[in-house]
Amino acid sequence: MDKALQYIEKNRENFVEELKKLLQFPSVSADSKYKEDVARCADYVQKRFESLGLEARQYPTKGHPIVFAEYKRPENKRTLLVYGHYDVQPVDPLNLWNKPPFEPHIENGHIYARGATDDKGQFLIHLLATESYLKTDTPLPVNLKFVIEGEEEIASNNLDDFIHEQRDLLTADGAIISDGSMYAPEVPAITYGLRGIAAAEIKLIGPNRDLHSGSFGGSICNPVTELARLIARFHGDDYHVQIDGFYDDVRALESWEREAFANLPHSEEEYLATTGSAGLAGEAGYTTLERIWARPTCEINGIYGGYSGEGSKTIIPSWAGAKVTMRLVPDQNPDDILDKFESYVKKVAPKGVKVEVNKLGGAKPAIVSRDSFLVKAAIRALQKAYGSEPVFMREGGSIPIVNVFKEELGVDTLLLGFGQQDDNAHSPNEKFSLSDFHRGIITAVHLFSETQE
Amino acid sequence: MDKALQYIEKNRENFVEELKKLLQFPSVSADSKYKEDVARCADYVQKRFESLGLEARQYPTKGHPIVFAEYKRPENKRTLLVYGHYDVQPVDPLNLWNKPPFEPHIENGHIYARGATDDKGQFLIHLLATESYLKTDTPLPVNLKFVIEGEEEIASNNLDDFIHEQRDLLTADGAIISDGSMYAPEVPAITYGLRGIAAAEIKLIGPNRDLHSGSFGGSICNPVTELARLIARFHGDDYHVQIDGFYDDVRALESWEREAFANLPHSEEEYLATTGSAGLAGEAGYTTLERIWARPTCEINGIYGGYSGEGSKTIIPSWAGAKVTMRLVPDQNPDDILDKFESYVKKVAPKGVKVEVNKLGGAKPAIVSRDSFLVKAAIRALQKAYGSEPVFMREGGSIPIVNVFKEELGVDTLLLGFGQQDDNAHSPNEKFSLSDFHRGIITAVHLFSETQE
Repeated sequence: MDKALQYIEKNRENFVEELKKLLQFPSVSADSKYKEDVARCADYVQKRFESLGLEARQYPTKGHPIVFAEYKRPENKRTLLVYGHYDVQPVDPLNLWNKPPFEPHIENGHIYARGATDDKGQFLIHLLATESYLKTDTPLPVNLKFVIEGEEEIASNNLDDFIHEQRDLLTADGAIISDGSMYAPEVPAITYGLRGIAAAEIKLIGPNRDLHSGSFGGSICNPVTELARLIARFHGDDYHVQIDGFYDDVRALESWEREAFANLPHSEEEYLATTGSAGLAGEAGYTTLERIWARPTCEINGIYGGYSGEGSKTIIPSWAGAKVTMRLVPDQNPDDILDKFESYVKKVAPKGVKVEVNKLGGAKPAIVSRDSFLVKAAIRALQKAYGSEPVFMREGGSIPIVNVFKEELGVDTLLLGFGQQDDNAHSPNEKFSLSDFHRGIITAVHLFSETQE
Repeated sequence: MDKALQYIEKNRENFVEELKKLLQFPSVSADSKYKEDVARCADYVQKRFESLGLEARQYPTKGHPIVFAEYKRPENKRTLLVYGHYDVQPVDPLNLWNKPPFEPHIENGHIYARGATDDKGQFLIHLLATESYLKTDTPLPVNLKFVIEGEEEIASNNLDDFIHEQRDLLTADGAIISDGSMYAPEVPAITYGLRGIAAAEIKLIGPNRDLHSGSFGGSICNPVTELARLIARFHGDDYHVQIDGFYDDVRALESWEREAFANLPHSEEEYLATTGSAGLAGEAGYTTLERIWARPTCEINGIYGGYSGEGSKTIIPSWAGAKVTMRLVPDQNPDDILDKFESYVKKVAPKGVKVEVNKLGGAKPAIVSRDSFLVKAAIRALQKAYGSEPVFMREGGSIPIVNVFKEELGVDTLLLGFGQQDDNAHSPNEKFSLSDFHRGIITAVHLFSETQE
């Protein structure tokens, strides 16, 4: 392993060049205009694995292909499944980028390009750690299976089927995902909880056409007004969600968690400043970190109905609608929550409007065991690479694949992010710290070593 | 006057042809594409007045011209000012018209065309009544001044200035507007009250960009949710408006009015059916007619913010907005109400969002004296033409010019509508009853006679 670590030091510059090569592919999965570029990127990733001597191939899907690569040695007792994605978010608004998004450049110790942190820079860490073993004739102490997909930014629609169909191929003892963030610069973290999600849209239908607000105003149920009144009943004054039974299955925060969160460095002022918002608002009785990591929400993502042009138009609109997503925490179930949501909306809406609730599906929340061999190995690996113990954090977003790995393959996932909260994932000027890229590779080398039985 | 009445009977068919000619002009004031057509229509109207021997001319404005015509006889003691408009609403959605909107056709005793009831058919009534006198060598017993404008459907933006500048030219003893409806078929009506209006738009501004609802949801004030909560506080459960001081200047319905309204034929089921709505909703303690004629409202005309496309988007939107119009009743003042609205919005909105209130102006409500010589004359004229006494009604919409006539010229206005509620003004398949057109001309002939001193 020492040789592998030396290889990393010696190739520090080369690895950055490797990352640049990968970042030059405009592998935007959402835009069919880039279909060829996505395919070229998949080919490149496959060849890159093959160049290490791994067996690699592509699995076509209805969308973009999945790259699979495998390292196997009979002596190894454990197999790790590394998940990542080679596709990237769209780049618009392009005018807000300081440099072209697919011409990576380095500034102040960061590499700037679309995909730098999400997720090319992060899955490459594991590839380069593997290279550091194999190019120094050091046998890897664990077997590895890589699943690098091309549709993560468009909801991974074909991934579940692939995993289900390839259950035997994908057998492993644990999964690793590096597609997130550390808690803060110099504060490595292991993420042990993810929120789930449940999505719906509501439509309230009033008159069969827009009515003249002079002739009818004051006498006919106005669907926009009623939608507002309905949404106002989603939360109490204390921002507690009012949907009947919403909190029934919420696992309460344990006291060690509240304590651990409270001890993390966190400034409400700085947090608020990053959003540009005038103020925080959330469920009474919980801190900001608790609210975003461990408490469910009912968020209105959009609202529409009636006139939105210049000046005024004197109508009672015919209908109004809203988009709603609820972030869920263990042990809430998206289907159950959507049922409860629908019942509540229908209970609360007035008789003067017709109500339509369209359920748009969801994903389960997840809590990962903190006692798995992988977590224990990661603690030691991070200690060696960063010189400090990682903190345990949760994440407010959703990574549905974690539950699929558990359900289909029976494995826990280690969520080991090397990005930072301010890396501008999904935004212009996405970046990734080269120092974390470097220490990430060192971490992965140690992790492979620490996970051997 | 008998000769005039005989002339009407003899020319019944000719008058319909006259109306057809007028309806063939696509005088859509809102659409610059029709600018020439609007101008041609103004020329036609001017020439039509000249053909009766009246002195007629056009007053250019920043927009479309105003046609003015005058009949004067030294013996006459009184002068009436007849207001109407030769411009029409746009015709879209064109596909919902059964026949082309500018090719008038007759079906079941109605003439169908854009402008039939609003307002070409109705101002033509007064022109043809004048003709019926003059073409039979019967001197008119009152002096007449006609103001037929071309911008009523685009807010009459240049009319106030015209009236102010031409105060001397427009001196009169009373004004007449036929641009509305009877209470119901065979139920002629005099409208003595109009609601005013006050318009505003609200914008709530949250984060400086759309935020990821996973990373931030539950901790940052969501402007869409807050807008809904704000709008929900515009009304109480009983639909009473909650804006502080909103009702301060509302003139209570007099007991004779409540009694008169209650005695009018009115079916809640039929009324509701015309809207296609699932239900009525309005201020507790008032009937539907009271709500739309004599009680103020706070109506949301449109709402917008965040994502409105297909599926879902997991964001906390950066901002949200709404359009609001409040219908006012005597003696509410639009400026005062807009101030109160702004204060209330700013009081109720949470600190977590920035609030912008943009006042879009308004128009005063009006109550017209029921004791004026014009109203008394109209009662007698309607009795003669329709064989029944008119009912007194109010109107939920606004006709701002009524207040301008009062303030600039010191005259009361007689609101004498010959249309019906279901004439589809502003909608496809606009129509006007030929029987009411005919009886309208008879009414006007009597009205001119009854108003002489």
